[in-house]
Amino acid sequence: MKYHYKCTISYDGSSFDGWQKQGNTHNTIQEYLEAALSNLLTNAIAIRGAGRTDAGVHAIGQVFDFFTDTQLDAPTFIEAINQKLPETMRILNLEAVLPDFHARKSALAKTYEYRIDTRLVANVFTRKYCYWLSTPLDTNAMKAAAAYLLGTHDFSSFTSDKTPDKDHIRTITDIKITTTDTTLTIAFTGDGFLYNMVRILAGTLIEVGQGKLNPDQIPAILAAKNRQTAGFTAPAQGLFLKEIFY
Amino acid sequence: MKYHYKCTISYDGSSFDGWQKQGNTHNTIQEYLEAALSNLLTNAIAIRGAGRTDAGVHAIGQVFDFFTDTQLDAPTFIEAINQKLPETMRILNLEAVLPDFHARKSALAKTYEYRIDTRLVANVFTRKYCYWLSTPLDTNAMKAAAAYLLGTHDFSSFTSDKTPDKDHIRTITDIKITTTDTTLTIAFTGDGFLYNMVRILAGTLIEVGQGKLNPDQIPAILAAKNRQTAGFTAPAQGLFLKEIFY
Repeated sequence: MKYHYKCTISYDGSSFDGWQKQGNTHNTIQEYLEAALSNLLTNAIAIRGAGRTDAGVHAIGQVFDFFTDTQLDAPTFIEAINQKLPETMRILNLEAVLPDFHARKSALAKTYEYRIDTRLVANVFTRKYCYWLSTPLDTNAMKAAAAYLLGTHDFSSFTSDKTPDKDHIRTITDIKITTTDTTLTIAFTGDGFLYNMVRILAGTLIEVGQGKLNPDQIPAILAAKNRQTAGFTAPAQGLFLKEIFY
Repeated sequence: MKYHYKCTISYDGSSFDGWQKQGNTHNTIQEYLEAALSNLLTNAIAIRGAGRTDAGVHAIGQVFDFFTDTQLDAPTFIEAINQKLPETMRILNLEAVLPDFHARKSALAKTYEYRIDTRLVANVFTRKYCYWLSTPLDTNAMKAAAAYLLGTHDFSSFTSDKTPDKDHIRTITDIKITTTDTTLTIAFTGDGFLYNMVRILAGTLIEVGQGKLNPDQIPAILAAKNRQTAGFTAPAQGLFLKEIFY
């Protein structure tokens, strides 16, 4: 196991029970990857993902690393491994990394994107890749609320994680809200995100956009450190892990 | 049956065995529509589509018309009918039309779009909505070939239809080839298209783009009136019925 590689992968999460290997299903992205890698490289490969994605959550640029006895040529490897994977996942890139690289621990920042289909009638082609919401959203209110979320905060109100004494402090460096005639996209960049945090942030901003919450309530929601005070958990199909920064 | 309506519909063709009702399957778009309409309007509704689309072919703006005893309010109807349809099809528009309107016979022109994913590695999110072709395409050669196809021709070389004595003369008024970093789109506009014609036109232009055919061979292919002389039938999943003009 003397060669160490970093891999970038894109997948359509609607086909899988999430990233992480678990007891009660074998339909996880990690398992398909480990099976294909072990088959191609003829030794048992264990991978380390940069972040877990839930069932239904997509990735444009998820990252994992692995060790192997085989030295790899990137274009040859990418073509061969993709032939062994379901068509719902595709390896995009491979690069050699130093022994101490760790896909999760070495990550400096991540960008997640939440996509909303704002058409009056849902677009059939993005039904698995957007949350359809035809009610008008006040983007100025959403931007004002987003400004309160920037910076370093205890995000206990914005996670479903109930592990006692767990560190819920994270830093969000950027939230970009962009619109077209047919979509609204919220891009969150930060040093890390807690369990369900991006979906709860998106759900809260949506409720602000709908006028159910006022932007000026955000500081009190953060201060409450109570999941009940924030907005709903927006559906998984609108969420994309876009990029990991090292 | 005194009210007459024209409806615009979008569908993800990958879920269906094509538009047209047939003997050996009930998974056709026409059948789902007629069942939902008959259920909502409580009388048996027969629809007339502007054009048949094959299994796997998508529609952004397919049109059909139907007669009913019930006077309809467009927003109410659209919301109600979409609740009765699979999420892979959505009615976008309804308007009252004169008794002599006929979705197919009244159509003046149609636009079909053929979409190619030109990424080195296939985009998992468009795998059902593009033909993935990572080999480079010479768009200038494709445009030169397209110019020969414009106008009124006998398109017998560009159809799988073998009905004897059938009129194979059609007029193509526009072929637009546009590219982005990740896609190549060919939009065909004409007065009508024969069975498989757009897919064979797309396949032929692709072969020109790959250098397998020369643009200057197109006049001879048209003149041959022989299916064997044209390019391959490009896969259904890249094809979209975009718009019908009346």
